[in-house]
Amino acid sequence: MSDTREQILEQIKVQGDLVRQLKATKESKEKLPLAPSSEGRAISTSVGQQLKAQQQQQLQEQQQQQQQMHKIDEEVSRLLALKAKLGGDATPANQKFTLKTPKGTRDYAPQQMTLRQGVLDKIVQVFKRHGGEAIDTPVFELKEVLTGKYGEDSKLIYDLKDQGGEILSMRYDLTVPLARYLAMNKISSIKRYHIAKVYRRDNPAMTRGRYREFYQCDFDIAGTYDPMLADAECVKIVAEVLDTLDIGDYVIKLNHRQLLDGMFEACGVPANNFRAICSAVDKLDKSPWADVRKEMVDEKGLDGATADKIGEYVRLSGGAELVEQLLADEKLKAVPNAVKGLEGMQLLLKYCSLFGLEERISFDLSLARGLDYYTGVIYEGVLKAEPSAPASPVKELHNGDQALEQSGTVGSVAGGGRYDNLVGMFDPRGKAVPCVGVSIGVERIFSVLEAKFAASKVKLRTNDVEVYVASAHKGLHEQRLRVLNQLWNAGIKAEHSYKLNPKLLVQLQHCEEHQIPLAIVLGDAELAQGIVKLREVTTRQESNVNLADLPNEIRRRLQK
Amino acid sequence: MSDTREQILEQIKVQGDLVRQLKATKESKEKLPLAPSSEGRAISTSVGQQLKAQQQQQLQEQQQQQQQMHKIDEEVSRLLALKAKLGGDATPANQKFTLKTPKGTRDYAPQQMTLRQGVLDKIVQVFKRHGGEAIDTPVFELKEVLTGKYGEDSKLIYDLKDQGGEILSMRYDLTVPLARYLAMNKISSIKRYHIAKVYRRDNPAMTRGRYREFYQCDFDIAGTYDPMLADAECVKIVAEVLDTLDIGDYVIKLNHRQLLDGMFEACGVPANNFRAICSAVDKLDKSPWADVRKEMVDEKGLDGATADKIGEYVRLSGGAELVEQLLADEKLKAVPNAVKGLEGMQLLLKYCSLFGLEERISFDLSLARGLDYYTGVIYEGVLKAEPSAPASPVKELHNGDQALEQSGTVGSVAGGGRYDNLVGMFDPRGKAVPCVGVSIGVERIFSVLEAKFAASKVKLRTNDVEVYVASAHKGLHEQRLRVLNQLWNAGIKAEHSYKLNPKLLVQLQHCEEHQIPLAIVLGDAELAQGIVKLREVTTRQESNVNLADLPNEIRRRLQK
Repeated sequence: MSDTREQILEQIKVQGDLVRQLKATKESKEKLPLAPSSEGRAISTSVGQQLKAQQQQQLQEQQQQQQQMHKIDEEVSRLLALKAKLGGDATPANQKFTLKTPKGTRDYAPQQMTLRQGVLDKIVQVFKRHGGEAIDTPVFELKEVLTGKYGEDSKLIYDLKDQGGEILSMRYDLTVPLARYLAMNKISSIKRYHIAKVYRRDNPAMTRGRYREFYQCDFDIAGTYDPMLADAECVKIVAEVLDTLDIGDYVIKLNHRQLLDGMFEACGVPANNFRAICSAVDKLDKSPWADVRKEMVDEKGLDGATADKIGEYVRLSGGAELVEQLLADEKLKAVPNAVKGLEGMQLLLKYCSLFGLEERISFDLSLARGLDYYTGVIYEGVLKAEPSAPASPVKELHNGDQALEQSGTVGSVAGGGRYDNLVGMFDPRGKAVPCVGVSIGVERIFSVLEAKFAASKVKLRTNDVEVYVASAHKGLHEQRLRVLNQLWNAGIKAEHSYKLNPKLLVQLQHCEEHQIPLAIVLGDAELAQGIVKLREVTTRQESNVNLADLPNEIRRRLQK
Repeated sequence: MSDTREQILEQIKVQGDLVRQLKATKESKEKLPLAPSSEGRAISTSVGQQLKAQQQQQLQEQQQQQQQMHKIDEEVSRLLALKAKLGGDATPANQKFTLKTPKGTRDYAPQQMTLRQGVLDKIVQVFKRHGGEAIDTPVFELKEVLTGKYGEDSKLIYDLKDQGGEILSMRYDLTVPLARYLAMNKISSIKRYHIAKVYRRDNPAMTRGRYREFYQCDFDIAGTYDPMLADAECVKIVAEVLDTLDIGDYVIKLNHRQLLDGMFEACGVPANNFRAICSAVDKLDKSPWADVRKEMVDEKGLDGATADKIGEYVRLSGGAELVEQLLADEKLKAVPNAVKGLEGMQLLLKYCSLFGLEERISFDLSLARGLDYYTGVIYEGVLKAEPSAPASPVKELHNGDQALEQSGTVGSVAGGGRYDNLVGMFDPRGKAVPCVGVSIGVERIFSVLEAKFAASKVKLRTNDVEVYVASAHKGLHEQRLRVLNQLWNAGIKAEHSYKLNPKLLVQLQHCEEHQIPLAIVLGDAELAQGIVKLREVTTRQESNVNLADLPNEIRRRLQK
């Protein structure tokens, strides 16, 4: 107790080294047990005997390890006691903060990356099937580019610190950067896709797949075209993506902003209140009508009778027959916007039916979508309730609304619409480029698929290694490098242990754990004859192959 | 002149509308001329006649356009005169800032994305051939994670604004996030690759491919292994990447930080001056020895004799024979660090020779690399001077030094080394995970390839469309949608005009411009018989195909 601070620090160092050394020794001995291979089939005798001997040794080692664990626990206690002497002050400089990713963000481990890459590849395939070209834009923009585009959600934008020079903000979606790109480069038509991360200082609900940094996956068609041809193709794309990802039954809800405005006008909503009432309607997918009505009346100052009229319309959904019915509706007939919207819907439904989408779509007057800038068709792909789906899915969609759904049964996984005036906001002369697009809610899709995989207990392969090059005994590392070089130069995916003399058992365990299909086992006896053993990892069958013929034989095996 | 401001604004609006309308009319008429198809081969008579008539019409339209251009110029002058009346105040609200990307950043257009994706795909193939797994990390980290890792380059880190909550910075490279990831998840071995953008508030020289936002492309092997096995594989990976990208002759320079330290010690540099002298040596690839010596003596306080001794060593380069020579060097022999470094080099050169790299590598004592955290082998892949290569290439590499080279003849396109202590800086108990890795300087490679493509005048295809569905005459848009649906459902990449009644000439021009190999031409006469014309765009040969057989026939043609 009378030790000086320096003496204690020195003791901590010595004791820490001891503990680290013990742990290192333990780790280097830890191996996962290999399932007994006593069936033995075509394993050569020498390799079979070696495996048996090594398994024996492994048992002894496991006992030793247990004894060692006690020893480590003891020594750790001593270390902690020493540290306690110093109060909370003994931690090294590198430990002053919690090791974590920023709030609302996550790392993607190899397993997640494999799943994610599979999803994105399939989506890109659909985008390319429709003639999509890729672009990319910077992760941040001049703050002015984002200003005034997101309404009250602007508070969620990440700003960069003013370090001298331009004032920058992180992109909030991929749509505003697209509009800036088109205006800046005077591009009047493009079919582009863009897959990238966007940033929102939202309150993350990460257990439900809702993050502050998340992927968006957008396809947009810009250009001055005839009505609904591009719009219908976007709906087709949503259907193709959801079909190819096979994440369950879905419906694509359709509506039209012009019809919504016309309907509001017909019900007696003042024009300057359209957007506010529209964003109240947008909440219908997560709140009952009573709550939405209350918001309209109490917060947005609508009189009750007007709200009730809206309430009658927004509970309607259907197909072409509903459009007919509404075109005959006395109130709507009198409002040009409503008629135009309905005629647009009529055309859209016809084109969708030519695309074979009749069973997949629903004209739904309650669909409003959050953002202000839509000017025409809007749509949303929604997963139907599935008992197996994880609860509390999310919306994380085109141009905005990463809003949590309360219902816990269905999830919006794609959305978009027409926005004809956004590009014009950037053009010095206000020249408009009409656009229609769709955003796939890939984070939500990742969550659904991750849950599926976790439930199925299937382990995704995270590497593509085709052949593992193993040594049967010591002193073969140079031979391994020669064989590896031969395989790599032939384009074969191959790896080995970076130890000079790894145990055969450990090497074969590595193959099983990592689902590597083939292993080459090098041994002096075989090498003297210019041959190696080629082992199929799952069946454990081995056969001799001429070294010179190895790449061809491996390719033959892999094609099987 | 006596008009009120409101009146002038109104006049500007009217005049602006007129100019816009004129320009829009002009644009909608502008078409690129189609090369005359008078050879005519197998074109059906009706289609051939239509094309001829349309070409005639095009000529007339071009004359009209010229007249119109004069008219537009006139009206624009009037508009400008009106605006001048108001002073600088007539621009709309959306035009208050210059439309641009942030300083040092750029958009990637489809052409650039195609090139970039091709490069990255090839690199990923190499990484996977060596068993690499992908990970991803957030684009920003807690500021503390980056603090103290980059020496004086820390001033180049982008900070986020403090908007409440955590203090964040943009990642500066992919190596520190990897180290954080390994320590945080207690991962003691991995082979991972990571391709993502990093951020440095550097002075960009964008014409030379040097940006503030740029891609890094890293492969690292973490784990406690036997000496040089993983290190040699990283050198092999550099060679495979540069071979597969085919960007010209290259050399991979190798050195060892322990040898550098030992050499400094042998020359009499005080230990606390090693890193400073090392970073002076790092400048030898862009400055002559005289300048570097001056920096050592004048700025870093070395005496001239010591500097001269260093100067003798750093001009040496060679192979295994140079290692032998240095192992026999009296001064170096006496310094354990130097001997260890040389023995390491000996082993590395041996393994590299087993990997067939003898002609590709050069042990080069002038190679120092910028960053502090290297602890062992360091290497750099350098393009050899090529008359065709663009001048003033850049370094943009592993873990740091995106430094401009002055020489204008060679370019560093890959680099890396061993860093055994970085992960330990994040581990609460200081547990080290030895790492060795390589970073491919893809921005530099993009620049080289972009210059090559620009010189070759080859136009890269930016979409993958296989078939264009065209109408021979009016009124066929629904038929187009039916055929498109059939093709998409069969997985064929297809597109059409989003106009109801596009001209055949315009549609076929689109195919030629976008290098679409096949076109389907729909016509009432053929459709009545259940057939369509399938046209090969480059040869202009057409043949009739049964609608039902269309997907199969297209696949057959594409395989040719």
